[in-house]
Amino acid sequence: MPEIGLAVSTVIFALRPHPETGRPVLSIPLVRRTRDPFEGRWALPGGWVDPAESLGTSASRTLVETTGVRPSYLEQLYTFGAPDRSPTGRVVSVVYWALVRPEQIGERTDAGFDAHNVAWFVADALPHLAFDHDDVVAYALWRLRTKVEYSAIAQGLIGSTFTLSELRQVHEAVLDRVLDPANFRRQVESSGTVVATGEHVQGGRHRPPRLYRYDTSAPLADLGPLAADPPIPTPADPPGENS
Amino acid sequence: MPEIGLAVSTVIFALRPHPETGRPVLSIPLVRRTRDPFEGRWALPGGWVDPAESLGTSASRTLVETTGVRPSYLEQLYTFGAPDRSPTGRVVSVVYWALVRPEQIGERTDAGFDAHNVAWFVADALPHLAFDHDDVVAYALWRLRTKVEYSAIAQGLIGSTFTLSELRQVHEAVLDRVLDPANFRRQVESSGTVVATGEHVQGGRHRPPRLYRYDTSAPLADLGPLAADPPIPTPADPPGENS
Repeated sequence: MPEIGLAVSTVIFALRPHPETGRPVLSIPLVRRTRDPFEGRWALPGGWVDPAESLGTSASRTLVETTGVRPSYLEQLYTFGAPDRSPTGRVVSVVYWALVRPEQIGERTDAGFDAHNVAWFVADALPHLAFDHDDVVAYALWRLRTKVEYSAIAQGLIGSTFTLSELRQVHEAVLDRVLDPANFRRQVESSGTVVATGEHVQGGRHRPPRLYRYDTSAPLADLGPLAADPPIPTPADPPGENS
Repeated sequence: MPEIGLAVSTVIFALRPHPETGRPVLSIPLVRRTRDPFEGRWALPGGWVDPAESLGTSASRTLVETTGVRPSYLEQLYTFGAPDRSPTGRVVSVVYWALVRPEQIGERTDAGFDAHNVAWFVADALPHLAFDHDDVVAYALWRLRTKVEYSAIAQGLIGSTFTLSELRQVHEAVLDRVLDPANFRRQVESSGTVVATGEHVQGGRHRPPRLYRYDTSAPLADLGPLAADPPIPTPADPPGENS
Protein backbone atom coordinates (compact mmCIF):
# COMPACT_ATOMS: atom_id res chain seq x y z
CA MET A 1 0.00 0.00 0.00
CA PRO A 2 1.82 3.17 -1.17
CA GLU A 3 2.34 6.08 1.21
CA ILE A 4 -0.15 8.83 0.33
CA GLY A 5 -1.60 11.34 2.78
CA LEU A 6 -5.39 11.72 2.76
CA ALA A 7 -6.87 15.07 3.73
CA VAL A 8 -10.26 16.80 3.59
CA SER A 9 -10.91 20.45 2.78
CA THR A 10 -14.17 22.37 2.59
CA VAL A 11 -15.28 25.35 0.54
CA ILE A 12 -17.85 27.13 2.72
CA PHE A 13 -20.25 29.62 1.13
CA ALA A 14 -22.36 32.19 2.96
CA LEU A 15 -23.86 35.56 2.09
CA ARG A 16 -22.16 38.36 4.04
CA PRO A 17 -22.28 42.14 3.65
CA HIS A 18 -19.67 43.35 1.19
CA PRO A 19 -16.98 45.21 3.21
CA GLU A 20 -17.41 48.33 1.02
CA THR A 21 -20.92 48.33 -0.48
CA GLY A 22 -22.66 46.53 2.40
CA ARG A 23 -24.70 44.49 -0.11
CA PRO A 24 -24.92 40.72 0.54
CA VAL A 25 -22.16 38.99 -1.40
CA LEU A 26 -21.03 35.39 -1.72
CA SER A 27 -18.27 34.91 0.86
CA ILE A 28 -15.84 32.16 1.90
CA PRO A 29 -14.00 31.73 5.22
CA LEU A 30 -10.29 30.97 4.95
CA VAL A 31 -7.66 29.93 7.46
CA ARG A 32 -4.17 31.41 7.52
CA ARG A 33 -1.50 28.69 7.55
CA THR A 34 0.76 28.90 10.59
CA ARG A 35 3.35 26.41 9.34
CA ASP A 36 5.03 25.23 6.17
CA PRO A 37 4.25 24.50 3.44
CA PHE A 38 2.76 27.85 2.45
CA GLU A 39 3.17 29.43 5.94
CA GLY A 40 1.31 32.75 6.09
CA ARG A 41 -0.80 31.97 2.99
CA TRP A 42 -4.61 31.64 3.24
CA ALA A 43 -6.09 28.18 2.63
CA LEU A 44 -9.38 26.30 2.78
CA PRO A 45 -10.25 24.88 6.21
CA GLY A 46 -9.46 21.18 6.49
CA GLY A 47 -7.17 18.59 7.95
CA TRP A 48 -6.15 14.94 7.86
CA VAL A 49 -8.79 12.24 7.69
CA ASP A 50 -8.94 10.30 10.96
CA PRO A 51 -8.88 6.54 10.19
CA ALA A 52 -11.99 6.01 12.36
CA GLU A 53 -14.07 8.75 10.67
CA SER A 54 -16.11 8.81 7.49
CA LEU A 55 -14.99 11.43 4.97
CA GLY A 56 -18.05 13.62 5.59
CA THR A 57 -17.50 13.48 9.35
CA SER A 58 -13.87 14.53 8.85
CA ALA A 59 -15.03 17.47 6.72
CA SER A 60 -17.63 18.58 9.32
CA ARG A 61 -15.22 18.20 12.23
CA THR A 62 -12.31 20.04 10.63
CA LEU A 63 -14.43 22.94 9.47
CA VAL A 64 -15.99 23.44 12.90
CA GLU A 65 -12.56 23.13 14.54
CA THR A 66 -10.92 25.66 12.25
CA THR A 67 -13.69 28.19 11.56
CA GLY A 68 -16.47 27.61 14.13
CA VAL A 69 -19.00 27.47 11.28
CA ARG A 70 -21.80 24.85 11.25
CA PRO A 71 -23.16 24.34 7.74
CA SER A 72 -26.77 23.81 6.66
CA TYR A 73 -25.62 21.75 3.69
CA LEU A 74 -22.53 19.66 3.03
CA GLU A 75 -21.79 17.75 -0.19
CA GLN A 76 -18.71 16.09 -1.59
CA LEU A 77 -17.34 18.19 -4.45
CA TYR A 78 -14.36 16.40 -5.99
CA THR A 79 -11.14 14.68 -5.01
CA PHE A 80 -7.99 16.56 -5.99
CA GLY A 81 -4.88 14.45 -6.34
CA ALA A 82 -2.31 15.90 -8.76
CA PRO A 83 1.07 14.40 -7.75
CA ASP A 84 2.68 17.84 -7.30
CA ARG A 85 -0.12 19.65 -5.43
CA SER A 86 1.77 19.64 -2.12
CA PRO A 87 5.52 20.36 -2.04
CA THR A 88 6.13 18.15 1.01
CA GLY A 89 4.82 14.78 -0.16
CA ARG A 90 1.86 13.25 -1.92
CA VAL A 91 -1.43 14.46 -0.46
CA VAL A 92 -4.85 13.63 -1.93
CA SER A 93 -7.63 15.94 -0.75
CA VAL A 94 -11.30 15.00 -0.71
CA VAL A 95 -13.02 18.38 -1.04
CA TYR A 96 -16.52 19.14 0.25
CA TRP A 97 -18.57 22.25 -0.28
CA ALA A 98 -20.90 23.67 2.34
CA LEU A 99 -23.60 26.30 2.64
CA VAL A 100 -24.18 28.35 5.79
CA ARG A 101 -27.29 30.35 6.69
CA PRO A 102 -26.85 33.84 8.11
CA GLU A 103 -27.93 32.81 11.62
CA GLN A 104 -25.42 29.93 11.63
CA ILE A 105 -22.35 32.11 11.23
CA GLY A 106 -21.26 31.90 14.83
CA GLU A 107 -18.45 33.96 16.28
CA ARG A 108 -16.12 31.57 18.07
CA THR A 109 -14.87 32.94 21.37
CA ASP A 110 -13.64 29.85 23.20
CA ALA A 111 -9.98 29.49 24.14
CA GLY A 112 -8.09 27.43 21.60
CA PHE A 113 -9.81 29.22 18.73
CA ASP A 114 -7.45 31.53 16.91
CA ALA A 115 -9.73 34.17 15.39
CA HIS A 116 -6.71 36.09 14.15
CA ASN A 117 -6.08 33.38 11.55
CA VAL A 118 -9.65 32.98 10.27
CA ALA A 119 -11.32 35.55 8.03
CA TRP A 120 -14.18 35.84 5.54
CA PHE A 121 -13.35 36.90 1.99
CA VAL A 122 -15.50 37.91 -0.97
CA ALA A 123 -15.63 34.74 -3.12
CA ASP A 124 -14.72 36.54 -6.35
CA ALA A 125 -11.83 38.49 -4.78
CA LEU A 126 -9.75 35.95 -2.90
CA PRO A 127 -6.02 36.27 -2.34
CA HIS A 128 -3.75 33.72 -4.04
CA LEU A 129 -4.29 30.58 -1.93
CA ALA A 130 -2.02 27.77 -0.73
CA PHE A 131 -1.71 24.44 -2.58
CA ASP A 132 -4.14 24.13 -5.56
CA HIS A 133 -6.92 25.84 -3.59
CA ASP A 134 -7.39 28.54 -6.26
CA ASP A 135 -8.50 25.79 -8.67
CA VAL A 136 -10.59 24.12 -5.98
CA VAL A 137 -12.51 27.33 -5.25
CA ALA A 138 -13.00 28.03 -8.98
CA TYR A 139 -14.58 24.61 -9.42
CA ALA A 140 -16.74 24.95 -6.28
CA LEU A 141 -18.02 28.35 -7.47
CA TRP A 142 -18.89 26.86 -10.85
CA ARG A 143 -20.76 23.97 -9.22
CA LEU A 144 -22.70 26.27 -6.87
CA ARG A 145 -23.64 28.65 -9.71
CA THR A 146 -24.71 25.79 -11.97
CA LYS A 147 -26.69 24.14 -9.20
CA VAL A 148 -28.53 27.23 -7.98
CA GLU A 149 -30.24 27.48 -11.37
CA TYR A 150 -31.89 24.05 -11.30
CA SER A 151 -32.17 23.01 -7.64
CA ALA A 152 -33.40 24.30 -4.29
CA ILE A 153 -29.84 24.83 -3.13
CA ALA A 154 -30.37 28.53 -2.28
CA GLN A 155 -32.31 27.17 0.71
CA GLY A 156 -28.93 26.53 2.33
CA LEU A 157 -28.07 30.25 2.27
CA ILE A 158 -31.28 31.90 3.44
CA GLY A 159 -33.31 32.05 6.65
CA SER A 160 -36.35 29.86 7.18
CA THR A 161 -38.82 32.47 5.87
CA PHE A 162 -38.18 35.19 3.33
CA THR A 163 -39.77 37.49 0.80
CA LEU A 164 -39.41 36.80 -2.92
CA SER A 165 -37.26 39.90 -3.10
CA GLU A 166 -34.89 38.48 -0.47
CA LEU A 167 -34.74 35.15 -2.31
CA ARG A 168 -33.95 36.97 -5.56
CA GLN A 169 -31.12 38.82 -3.79
CA VAL A 170 -29.66 35.44 -2.75
CA HIS A 171 -29.74 34.22 -6.35
CA GLU A 172 -28.28 37.53 -7.54
CA ALA A 173 -25.45 37.31 -4.99
CA VAL A 174 -24.64 33.71 -5.99
CA LEU A 175 -24.78 34.40 -9.73
CA ASP A 176 -23.22 37.87 -9.38
CA ARG A 177 -25.74 39.38 -11.78
CA VAL A 178 -29.05 41.24 -11.62
CA LEU A 179 -32.21 39.20 -12.26
CA ASP A 180 -35.51 40.48 -13.59
CA PRO A 181 -38.00 40.50 -10.67
CA ALA A 182 -41.04 39.41 -12.73
CA ASN A 183 -39.16 36.57 -14.48
CA PHE A 184 -37.70 35.44 -11.18
CA ARG A 185 -41.15 35.36 -9.55
CA ARG A 186 -42.54 33.25 -12.42
CA GLN A 187 -39.64 30.79 -12.22
CA VAL A 188 -39.97 30.38 -8.46
CA GLU A 189 -43.72 29.95 -8.64
CA SER A 190 -43.44 27.30 -11.36
CA SER A 191 -40.65 25.40 -9.54
CA GLY A 192 -42.98 24.22 -6.80
CA THR A 193 -40.16 24.20 -4.22
CA VAL A 194 -41.11 27.49 -2.54
CA VAL A 195 -44.48 27.92 -0.82
CA ALA A 196 -46.28 30.90 0.73
CA THR A 197 -46.47 30.77 4.53
CA GLY A 198 -49.69 32.83 4.65
CA GLU A 199 -47.82 35.44 6.72
CA HIS A 200 -46.64 38.88 5.68
CA VAL A 201 -43.70 41.03 6.67
CA GLN A 202 -44.59 42.85 9.91
CA GLY A 203 -44.78 46.62 9.73
CA GLY A 204 -47.02 49.51 8.83
CA ARG A 205 -46.79 49.26 5.05
CA HIS A 206 -49.89 49.47 2.87
CA ARG A 207 -49.10 46.21 1.02
CA PRO A 208 -46.60 44.27 3.15
CA PRO A 209 -44.71 41.62 1.14
CA ARG A 210 -45.74 37.99 1.57
CA LEU A 211 -43.42 35.58 3.38
CA TYR A 212 -42.39 32.31 1.76
CA ARG A 213 -40.54 29.21 2.85
CA TYR A 214 -39.00 26.24 1.07
CA ASP A 215 -41.07 23.09 0.84
CA THR A 216 -38.83 21.14 3.21
CA SER A 217 -40.12 17.80 1.93
CA ALA A 218 -37.91 18.43 -1.13
CA PRO A 219 -34.16 17.86 -0.74
CA LEU A 220 -31.78 20.77 -1.33
CA ALA A 221 -30.19 18.79 -4.14
CA ASP A 222 -30.89 15.41 -5.68
CA LEU A 223 -28.03 13.03 -4.92
CA GLY A 224 -29.91 9.94 -6.09
CA PRO A 225 -29.10 6.74 -4.25
CA LEU A 226 -26.09 8.26 -2.52
CA ALA A 227 -26.69 8.36 1.20
CA ALA A 228 -25.86 11.75 2.68
CA ASP A 229 -22.54 11.48 4.51
CA PRO A 230 -22.92 12.72 7.18
CA PRO A 231 -26.70 13.21 7.18
CA ILE A 232 -27.50 16.72 6.02
CA PRO A 233 -29.02 18.67 8.91
CA THR A 234 -32.70 19.41 8.45
CA PRO A 235 -33.54 23.08 7.99
CA ALA A 236 -34.22 24.98 11.19
CA ASP A 237 -37.86 25.07 12.21
CA PRO A 238 -39.59 28.37 11.48
CA PRO A 239 -39.00 30.71 14.44
CA GLY A 240 -41.78 30.79 16.98
CA GLU A 241 -43.34 27.46 16.01
CA ASN A 242 -41.71 25.38 18.71
CA SER A 243 -39.19 27.55 20.46
CA MET B 1 -0.36 11.44 8.75
CA PRO B 2 -2.76 8.56 9.54
CA GLU B 3 -2.44 5.22 7.73
CA ILE B 4 -5.20 4.99 5.12
CA GLY B 5 -4.97 3.06 1.86
CA LEU B 6 -5.94 4.97 -1.28
CA ALA B 7 -7.36 3.02 -4.21
CA VAL B 8 -9.12 3.78 -7.50
CA SER B 9 -11.98 1.81 -9.03
CA THR B 10 -13.86 2.36 -12.29
CA VAL B 11 -17.41 1.60 -13.36
CA ILE B 12 -17.18 0.96 -17.11
CA PHE B 13 -20.33 1.14 -19.23
CA ALA B 14 -20.76 -0.22 -22.75
CA LEU B 15 -23.67 -1.47 -24.82
CA ARG B 16 -23.39 -5.22 -25.46
CA PRO B 17 -25.88 -7.74 -26.81
CA HIS B 18 -28.04 -9.18 -24.04
CA PRO B 19 -26.99 -12.83 -23.55
CA GLU B 20 -30.58 -14.02 -24.06
CA THR B 21 -32.46 -11.46 -26.16
CA GLY B 22 -29.48 -10.24 -28.22
CA ARG B 23 -30.70 -6.64 -27.88
CA PRO B 24 -28.08 -4.02 -26.92
CA VAL B 25 -28.10 -3.59 -23.15
CA LEU B 26 -26.07 -1.52 -20.72
CA SER B 27 -23.21 -3.73 -19.55
CA ILE B 28 -20.34 -3.54 -17.05
CA PRO B 29 -17.08 -5.55 -16.97
CA LEU B 30 -16.15 -7.03 -13.59
CA VAL B 31 -13.06 -8.74 -12.27
CA ARG B 32 -13.20 -11.84 -10.09
CA ARG B 33 -11.11 -11.43 -6.94
CA THR B 34 -8.37 -14.03 -6.65
CA ARG B 35 -7.45 -13.24 -3.04
CA ASP B 36 -8.94 -12.14 0.24
CA PRO B 37 -10.85 -10.11 1.18
CA PHE B 38 -13.86 -11.31 -0.84
CA GLU B 39 -11.90 -14.01 -2.74
CA GLY B 40 -14.06 -15.40 -5.58
CA ARG B 41 -16.48 -12.43 -5.49
CA TRP B 42 -16.82 -10.11 -8.52
CA ALA B 43 -15.59 -6.52 -8.10
CA LEU B 44 -15.03 -3.33 -10.08
CA PRO B 45 -11.66 -3.10 -11.83
CA GLY B 46 -9.16 -0.98 -9.91
CA GLY B 47 -6.07 -0.98 -7.75
CA TRP B 48 -3.85 1.11 -5.50
CA VAL B 49 -2.95 4.65 -6.50
CA ASP B 50 0.73 4.88 -7.40
CA PRO B 51 2.30 7.88 -5.56
CA ALA B 52 3.72 9.20 -8.85
CA GLU B 53 0.42 9.06 -10.76
CA SER B 54 -2.54 11.41 -10.94
CA LEU B 55 -5.84 9.82 -9.88
CA GLY B 56 -7.18 9.76 -13.44
CA THR B 57 -4.02 8.10 -14.70
CA SER B 58 -4.32 5.46 -11.98
CA ALA B 59 -7.91 4.81 -13.04
CA SER B 60 -6.97 4.49 -16.74
CA ARG B 61 -3.99 2.27 -16.03
CA THR B 62 -5.75 -0.12 -13.67
CA LEU B 63 -8.76 -0.56 -15.94
CA VAL B 64 -6.61 -1.34 -18.98
CA GLU B 65 -4.46 -3.71 -16.89
CA THR B 66 -7.41 -5.60 -15.49
CA THR B 67 -9.94 -5.58 -18.35
CA GLY B 68 -8.10 -4.54 -21.54
CA VAL B 69 -10.78 -1.90 -22.16
CA ARG B 70 -9.84 1.61 -23.37
CA PRO B 71 -12.60 4.11 -22.63
CA SER B 72 -13.84 6.97 -24.79
CA TYR B 73 -14.80 8.94 -21.69
CA LEU B 74 -13.54 8.94 -18.11
CA GLU B 75 -14.87 11.13 -15.30
CA GLN B 76 -14.45 11.10 -11.55
CA LEU B 77 -17.67 9.88 -9.93
CA TYR B 78 -17.29 10.07 -6.14
CA THR B 79 -14.92 9.09 -3.37
CA PHE B 80 -16.17 6.30 -1.13
CA GLY B 81 -14.64 6.18 2.32
CA ALA B 82 -16.91 4.56 4.93
CA PRO B 83 -14.60 3.34 7.72
CA ASP B 84 -15.89 -0.27 7.47
CA ARG B 85 -15.98 -0.70 3.68
CA SER B 86 -12.98 -3.03 3.65
CA PRO B 87 -12.61 -5.74 6.31
CA THR B 88 -8.79 -5.65 6.24
CA GLY B 89 -8.05 -2.00 7.03
CA ARG B 90 -9.15 1.48 6.09
CA VAL B 91 -9.30 1.94 2.31
CA VAL B 92 -10.66 5.05 0.61
CA SER B 93 -11.58 4.53 -3.05
CA VAL B 94 -11.71 7.32 -5.62
CA VAL B 95 -14.23 5.97 -8.14
CA TYR B 96 -14.31 6.93 -11.82
CA TRP B 97 -16.91 6.06 -14.42
CA ALA B 98 -16.07 5.36 -18.04
CA LEU B 99 -17.87 4.89 -21.34
CA VAL B 100 -16.65 2.53 -24.05
CA ARG B 101 -17.67 2.53 -27.72
CA PRO B 102 -18.47 -0.82 -29.37
CA GLU B 103 -15.30 -0.79 -31.49
CA GLN B 104 -13.14 -0.14 -28.39
CA ILE B 105 -14.12 -3.33 -26.60
CA GLY B 106 -10.94 -5.21 -27.35
CA GLU B 107 -10.43 -8.86 -26.55
CA ARG B 108 -7.17 -9.16 -24.63
CA THR B 109 -5.12 -12.16 -25.69
CA ASP B 110 -1.65 -11.33 -24.31
CA ALA B 111 0.07 -13.65 -21.86
CA GLY B 112 -0.36 -11.74 -18.57
CA PHE B 113 -4.12 -11.27 -19.07
CA ASP B 114 -6.39 -13.66 -17.18
CA ALA B 115 -9.57 -13.71 -19.29
CA HIS B 116 -11.08 -16.33 -16.99
CA ASN B 117 -11.47 -13.72 -14.25
CA VAL B 118 -12.94 -10.89 -16.35
CA ALA B 119 -16.52 -10.92 -17.62
CA TRP B 120 -19.22 -8.54 -18.84
CA PHE B 121 -22.49 -8.42 -16.92
CA VAL B 122 -25.85 -6.80 -17.64
CA ALA B 123 -25.76 -3.59 -15.53
CA ASP B 124 -29.18 -4.18 -13.98
CA ALA B 125 -28.51 -7.85 -13.16
CA LEU B 126 -25.15 -7.91 -11.40
CA PRO B 127 -24.18 -10.51 -8.82
CA HIS B 128 -23.63 -9.31 -5.23
CA LEU B 129 -20.26 -7.53 -5.45
CA ALA B 130 -17.25 -7.26 -3.14
CA PHE B 131 -16.76 -4.31 -0.75
CA ASP B 132 -19.41 -1.56 -1.17
CA HIS B 133 -19.37 -1.96 -4.96
CA ASP B 134 -23.14 -2.62 -5.12
CA ASP B 135 -23.68 0.92 -3.82
CA VAL B 136 -20.99 2.31 -6.11
CA VAL B 137 -22.63 0.81 -9.21
CA ALA B 138 -26.09 2.01 -8.13
CA TYR B 139 -24.78 5.57 -7.87
CA ALA B 140 -22.89 5.36 -11.18
CA LEU B 141 -26.03 4.07 -12.95
CA TRP B 142 -28.04 6.95 -11.49
CA ARG B 143 -25.44 9.49 -12.65
CA LEU B 144 -25.26 8.03 -16.17
CA ARG B 145 -29.07 7.94 -16.50
CA THR B 146 -29.43 11.49 -15.20
CA LYS B 147 -26.66 12.77 -17.44
CA VAL B 148 -27.81 11.10 -20.68
CA GLU B 149 -30.98 13.21 -20.54
CA TYR B 150 -29.27 16.61 -20.57
CA SER B 151 -25.82 16.12 -22.11
CA ALA B 152 -24.11 14.63 -25.14
CA ILE B 153 -22.81 11.75 -23.06
CA ALA B 154 -24.36 9.05 -25.29
CA GLN B 155 -21.58 10.00 -27.72
CA GLY B 156 -19.26 7.91 -25.54
CA LEU B 157 -21.28 4.75 -26.24
CA ILE B 158 -21.92 4.94 -29.98
CA GLY B 159 -19.84 4.76 -33.18
CA SER B 160 -18.74 7.90 -35.00
CA THR B 161 -21.78 7.93 -37.35
CA PHE B 162 -25.23 6.55 -36.67
CA THR B 163 -28.87 6.75 -37.64
CA LEU B 164 -31.36 8.47 -35.34
CA SER B 165 -32.88 5.06 -34.72
CA GLU B 166 -29.50 3.73 -33.54
CA LEU B 167 -29.03 6.77 -31.26
CA ARG B 168 -32.50 6.24 -29.81
CA GLN B 169 -31.62 2.60 -29.09
CA VAL B 170 -28.57 3.82 -27.12
CA HIS B 171 -30.77 6.12 -25.04
CA GLU B 172 -33.33 3.33 -24.59
CA ALA B 173 -30.62 0.92 -23.44
CA VAL B 174 -29.20 3.43 -20.97
CA LEU B 175 -32.60 4.44 -19.60
CA ASP B 176 -34.00 0.89 -19.84
CA ARG B 177 -37.27 2.17 -21.29
CA VAL B 178 -38.86 2.64 -24.70
CA LEU B 179 -38.81 6.19 -26.14
CA ASP B 180 -41.25 7.65 -28.63
CA PRO B 181 -39.39 7.96 -31.99
CA ALA B 182 -41.01 11.27 -33.02
CA ASN B 183 -40.41 12.92 -29.63
CA PHE B 184 -36.85 11.65 -29.57
CA ARG B 185 -36.17 13.07 -33.05
CA ARG B 186 -37.52 16.47 -32.00
CA GLN B 187 -35.38 16.52 -28.84
CA VAL B 188 -32.22 15.58 -30.71
CA GLU B 189 -32.84 18.12 -33.45
CA SER B 190 -33.43 20.91 -30.93
CA SER B 191 -30.36 19.99 -28.84
CA GLY B 192 -27.96 21.12 -31.56
CA THR B 193 -25.36 18.54 -30.51
CA VAL B 194 -26.06 16.05 -33.32
CA VAL B 195 -25.60 17.02 -36.98
CA ALA B 196 -26.43 15.29 -40.27
CA THR B 197 -23.37 14.04 -42.16
CA GLY B 198 -25.07 14.34 -45.57
CA GLU B 199 -24.55 10.58 -46.03
CA HIS B 200 -27.12 7.80 -45.91
CA VAL B 201 -26.99 4.18 -44.84
CA GLN B 202 -25.60 2.12 -47.74
CA GLY B 203 -27.96 -0.45 -49.26
CA GLY B 204 -30.76 -0.92 -51.74
CA ARG B 205 -33.58 0.57 -49.69
CA HIS B 206 -36.05 3.03 -51.22
CA ARG B 207 -35.50 5.65 -48.48
CA PRO B 208 -32.20 4.83 -46.76
CA PRO B 209 -31.94 6.45 -43.29
CA ARG B 210 -29.72 9.51 -42.92
CA LEU B 211 -26.45 9.25 -41.03
CA TYR B 212 -25.65 11.64 -38.18
CA ARG B 213 -22.65 12.42 -36.04
CA TYR B 214 -22.06 14.37 -32.85
CA ASP B 215 -20.84 17.92 -33.18
CA THR B 216 -17.41 17.13 -31.76
CA SER B 217 -16.76 20.79 -30.91
CA ALA B 218 -19.13 20.23 -27.97
CA PRO B 219 -17.76 18.35 -24.95
CA LEU B 220 -19.44 15.09 -23.88
CA ALA B 221 -20.21 16.70 -20.53
CA ASP B 222 -19.66 20.14 -19.08
CA LEU B 223 -17.13 19.94 -16.24
CA GLY B 224 -16.65 23.70 -16.04
CA PRO B 225 -13.19 24.85 -15.01
CA LEU B 226 -12.10 21.37 -14.01
CA ALA B 227 -9.32 20.21 -16.27
CA ALA B 228 -9.92 16.71 -17.57
CA ASP B 229 -7.64 14.31 -15.71
CA PRO B 230 -6.29 12.59 -17.75
CA PRO B 231 -7.29 14.44 -20.95
CA ILE B 232 -10.42 12.82 -22.33
CA PRO B 233 -9.54 11.18 -25.66
CA THR B 234 -11.08 12.97 -28.61
CA PRO B 235 -13.74 10.97 -30.44
CA ALA B 236 -12.43 8.77 -33.24
CA ASP B 237 -12.35 10.49 -36.62
CA PRO B 238 -15.16 9.45 -38.93
CA PRO B 239 -14.03 6.31 -40.81
CA GLY B 240 -12.55 6.95 -44.24
CA GLU B 241 -11.76 10.61 -43.64
CA ASN B 242 -8.08 10.17 -42.84
CA SER B 243 -7.44 6.48 -42.51
